[in-house]
Amino acid sequence: MARLLDALVGDAETAQLFSDEADLAAMVRIEAELALAQAETGLIPPEAGERIAAVCGDFRPDLGRLAESMAADGVVVPELVRQLRQAVGEPHGRLVHHGATSQDIVDTSLVLRLGGALDLLAHRLRGLVDALRALKLRDGRISLMAHTRMQQALPFTAGDKLESWIVPLERHEARLAQLRPRSLAVQLGGPVGLGLGERVTALLAERLGLAAGRSWHSQRDRIAEIGAWLSLVSGSLGKIGQDVALMAQNEVAAVRLAGGGASSAMPHKANPVAAEVLVALARLNATLLGGLHQALVHENERSGAAWTLEWLLLPQMAVATAAALRHGRGLAESMSFSPG
Amino acid sequence: MARLLDALVGDAETAQLFSDEADLAAMVRIEAELALAQAETGLIPPEAGERIAAVCGDFRPDLGRLAESMAADGVVVPELVRQLRQAVGEPHGRLVHHGATSQDIVDTSLVLRLGGALDLLAHRLRGLVDALRALKLRDGRISLMAHTRMQQALPFTAGDKLESWIVPLERHEARLAQLRPRSLAVQLGGPVGLGLGERVTALLAERLGLAAGRSWHSQRDRIAEIGAWLSLVSGSLGKIGQDVALMAQNEVAAVRLAGGGASSAMPHKANPVAAEVLVALARLNATLLGGLHQALVHENERSGAAWTLEWLLLPQMAVATAAALRHGRGLAESMSFSPG
Amino acid sequence: MARLLDALVGDAETAQLFSDEADLAAMVRIEAELALAQAETGLIPPEAGERIAAVCGDFRPDLGRLAESMAADGVVVPELVRQLRQAVGEPHGRLVHHGATSQDIVDTSLVLRLGGALDLLAHRLRGLVDALRALKLRDGRISLMAHTRMQQALPFTAGDKLESWIVPLERHEARLAQLRPRSLAVQLGGPVGLGLGERVTALLAERLGLAAGRSWHSQRDRIAEIGAWLSLVSGSLGKIGQDVALMAQNEVAAVRLAGGGASSAMPHKANPVAAEVLVALARLNATLLGGLHQALVHENERSGAAWTLEWLLLPQMAVATAAALRHGRGLAESMSFSPG
Amino acid sequence: MARLLDALVGDAETAQLFSDEADLAAMVRIEAELALAQAETGLIPPEAGERIAAVCGDFRPDLGRLAESMAADGVVVPELVRQLRQAVGEPHGRLVHHGATSQDIVDTSLVLRLGGALDLLAHRLRGLVDALRALKLRDGRISLMAHTRMQQALPFTAGDKLESWIVPLERHEARLAQLRPRSLAVQLGGPVGLGLGERVTALLAERLGLAAGRSWHSQRDRIAEIGAWLSLVSGSLGKIGQDVALMAQNEVAAVRLAGGGASSAMPHKANPVAAEVLVALARLNATLLGGLHQALVHENERSGAAWTLEWLLLPQMAVATAAALRHGRGLAESMSFSPG
Repeated sequence: MARLLDALVGDAETAQLFSDEADLAAMVRIEAELALAQAETGLIPPEAGERIAAVCGDFRPDLGRLAESMAADGVVVPELVRQLRQAVGEPHGRLVHHGATSQDIVDTSLVLRLGGALDLLAHRLRGLVDALRALKLRDGRISLMAHTRMQQALPFTAGDKLESWIVPLERHEARLAQLRPRSLAVQLGGPVGLGLGERVTALLAERLGLAAGRSWHSQRDRIAEIGAWLSLVSGSLGKIGQDVALMAQNEVAAVRLAGGGASSAMPHKANPVAAEVLVALARLNATLLGGLHQALVHENERSGAAWTLEWLLLPQMAVATAAALRHGRGLAESMSFSPG
Repeated sequence: MARLLDALVGDAETAQLFSDEADLAAMVRIEAELALAQAETGLIPPEAGERIAAVCGDFRPDLGRLAESMAADGVVVPELVRQLRQAVGEPHGRLVHHGATSQDIVDTSLVLRLGGALDLLAHRLRGLVDALRALKLRDGRISLMAHTRMQQALPFTAGDKLESWIVPLERHEARLAQLRPRSLAVQLGGPVGLGLGERVTALLAERLGLAAGRSWHSQRDRIAEIGAWLSLVSGSLGKIGQDVALMAQNEVAAVRLAGGGASSAMPHKANPVAAEVLVALARLNATLLGGLHQALVHENERSGAAWTLEWLLLPQMAVATAAALRHGRGLAESMSFSPG
Repeated sequence: MARLLDALVGDAETAQLFSDEADLAAMVRIEAELALAQAETGLIPPEAGERIAAVCGDFRPDLGRLAESMAADGVVVPELVRQLRQAVGEPHGRLVHHGATSQDIVDTSLVLRLGGALDLLAHRLRGLVDALRALKLRDGRISLMAHTRMQQALPFTAGDKLESWIVPLERHEARLAQLRPRSLAVQLGGPVGLGLGERVTALLAERLGLAAGRSWHSQRDRIAEIGAWLSLVSGSLGKIGQDVALMAQNEVAAVRLAGGGASSAMPHKANPVAAEVLVALARLNATLLGGLHQALVHENERSGAAWTLEWLLLPQMAVATAAALRHGRGLAESMSFSPG
Repeated sequence: MARLLDALVGDAETAQLFSDEADLAAMVRIEAELALAQAETGLIPPEAGERIAAVCGDFRPDLGRLAESMAADGVVVPELVRQLRQAVGEPHGRLVHHGATSQDIVDTSLVLRLGGALDLLAHRLRGLVDALRALKLRDGRISLMAHTRMQQALPFTAGDKLESWIVPLERHEARLAQLRPRSLAVQLGGPVGLGLGERVTALLAERLGLAAGRSWHSQRDRIAEIGAWLSLVSGSLGKIGQDVALMAQNEVAAVRLAGGGASSAMPHKANPVAAEVLVALARLNATLLGGLHQALVHENERSGAAWTLEWLLLPQMAVATAAALRHGRGLAESMSFSPG
């Protein structure tokens, strides 16, 4: 709704991955690859596979009708498949989406785009670690007062502080390396999750660059695990933001921030905007994570309610994490520690 | 990001209230009314008030610069005031936003639009109660099996069930009548909340149709109370949705739903889409409410972090509640109870 | 589990209201009053009412069997009623719990004890406001630097700061006065909520000092509203705690705290323990509130799952709020503002 | 507070790990091992190490004084160290807790007991998987109607359903194997986290069976990661519980549950108590997880507020997960699928 706010807490690159355009493009691609995989295994005629893939290649969906269908069906796939079948025409049209169900397409599209989001986040995470290491190299020996429980404790160095910020970020990298192969699996279950055959699944997975495996329709643990990782990352950044905001207090003055935010009433002020945003995004993601784990209670072979709840939460979390990494890097590259 | 999803869980009318356009229009209006109030009390010359109000009347902000300023300052007002001052020109330009601070404008704009949102929600709530009463009039005598703890208990009637849905909605109306006058107060504090004088505040409040009162910059209880009310409403609707989804099970068949959602794999199915959405939105709002109450810990005379967190949560909650009321009414008007 | 932690964040007086002892005593009392009300209306013989009330008067339940029954039934009432019936003996034993269901007894017991908890909290809230007013009287004129967005803004006074703490607390008092009569109603629905007759309900309500009204078995909005109020109160106290912790920083030194917590490594430190606890309890309650509102999705005529979730959350919230008020008052009575 | 409720949703074995007794025993053990490690490296005299370890061996703390100290200091260690030093006597008493800080002892004690909790949970998880596999072996071929979006879809088998329950549990085992070595590290930082020397840390870690490594005082990602794992496990169990409650509906009758809970009003009912509890515990943990991730925003070198919040949440989550696993196994061993 509010695009101005996005300038502060949004992230266009990540938001694009969760846009309608990206979702529909992924869905159409999946239908094409599915048809080719099914043709390769002889489940549908080769010419059907070719025809479907060709039509998908430059298909433009009717967005108005998709929106109507979303409002009525709670999912966009039935109408998308109808449009695709019409575009393919007979005799091959009816072989579009052959044996598949809406959730196969929706979840596989989600996973494809989550893969892109995780790549982007991994890249930013590395960039942030590098920037913090560079800051440590430059300012690390500056003496700093440590504070415990909001009271002065004993002196240490900026390098000690920075190391305590960096280490968790490197653990997040290790976590990501472990969860990525576990999480990004093709979903191909058909109406009730029995699958469309191991070979088709393996072929489709290979074409899409995803892991193969059994249908996971009603098993949302991988989604919830990705959400937890996102919140771990933004939480560690929130800790950095909180530290910076405390160190940037005029009375403490342990850091200098470039480009502090302007005030409409007090020209002398320089607000620690990026630091505040890191705290806000950490609290946002912690909040949303609680909701995402509610969606683990996914009834029967598919829950409309829990599934919709996921859609409302997970993209926000990915965008918030990406925005936090961007702000974190901006901070790391522009702040400096002040000799006490 | 995803406008197709909005067709299901969004609400255009409410989202409009929280759009940039509505926010900026409210902000510009507040600056105009403030100048007129200050002119009336002699704080600024009458011609300054007139000039500022006139310029505000057809002011079009430079959105690109506002977005840049948002990213840098974490708040849009300093740049908006700069643009307004330039448009007004000297000698009166410097009297735009006289004595006020960013948060005065942001919070008063929020309250103005929350007033509109509460009106809209109150109207829909009444419409839903009426629709449920009409359904009770028509189907109320149909015998129904009551279920406790997911097991058949004893028969009662559709009227008994409907009454149990209606009564909490009427309590929500009573709650709204109590919290509305308490919640919608003008915010006029100046840099640190000391206010701009009682008379100016009273005049500005009157012009804007808000309650007067002391500056509440750092007191977010009214925002959190509105959030709780939103979640109470959507929670009661989530209960209705859950009941409908359970009654609409094929094995139970106690209700018939018009226009169930289509399935891409199983043409015989009719999914209880609206009922599922009610559950999803209830769980969304419960989740977001937890975050909104985290923002009560609003440090010092203004918290950038807690304030940003509010912005990220409250509009979503209002939209979700409005969407739930729309779906609830749609359900009430299209469902029917089935003789057992 | 951890009673040492309770010394910090617990509250024995409030915890007692939610103890097994208090719950069972309330339940037995309700069974007695119900029998007397039913005798008065002629639903059961007068001598049955007298006999049941007399036995209830000094009944000691078999706790071991109640625990076994809790584990098996998910609710304690069936076994409690069995024990009571046995103690009453025939011919009147079978008239214990006449027409009632487990939830009538559990929910009415909850409401009775919530009434006690709200009294206690109201009393502490008033005490806290008085203590803050006294602090304002003594220290109110001391000059203080206001901080917005974690930066120095302009000077104001300790009195201004204190007023911004007091006003929300007084709003909480006004809120409580409005929600109390709405919330504390007897629950008497029988198996599926059809009630046991208006007259019996009215009599029982009168005997218990509760509001009468229709059965609200499956309408949890009043519970969720009380939870929201608890979180509003602890949230406002968390804001006070955060302010105090920031002002007590050595570099700021705007307040002096008596009896700061000791450190095992640094004898010179005085940790702002009470202030930290206020922040922790505010965040705890905000968290739990999100879960309590999830429990609004209470399926059918009674949800075992949502009901159990309430039991796990609401008592914690009441205790946390009571503990926060106790710490808040302790702070108010022992802190002092320091001339800048 | 309410021990009857613990009979349903508690877990005595896990609760014991988070009791005062277990915490104090671990703390005293850590002080002993620390002294021995410091003696071994020559940091304190060998006879000091021996004397301290000997006294710790049968030390009984004064609990009343510890509670007073908890209330005053917000942490129990300063008073515990005082008591230990007194018991050791001079000249070695002052070498108790040499160079360490409260948080070293509190966090290392937490990690030691979390190790025990994870062992217990891993054992129960395996037991549950085995029980579900046995159920599949017996009932797996029974035909079952699959349901998507609360509507009948197509038939599959009990074996398909059970497999969809088992696979996420096995993923949880894989996750635990990955996070365990990362999470359970000794904490030894001294006042501001600079550590007590690599060799002492390594020796202490070895003696305690923990990983060595740098001080992680202010890095709470490992705690938050364990919390996420707990919620993933209970969430998957909540999904099983929801499925069972739906299948156990009288109208569906796809499963038979042994020992359903009694009703006080309707003797014919058998409530699916364990299934409901699984749902309640899943929603509890999802709620608490949101709060635990709020505690990632851990300011400076130690946060009193965020740390206290952890203490209030993490033990509950471990107990809830253990209780859910116990109920899950009970369900798996007593339920049977019914030929449709």
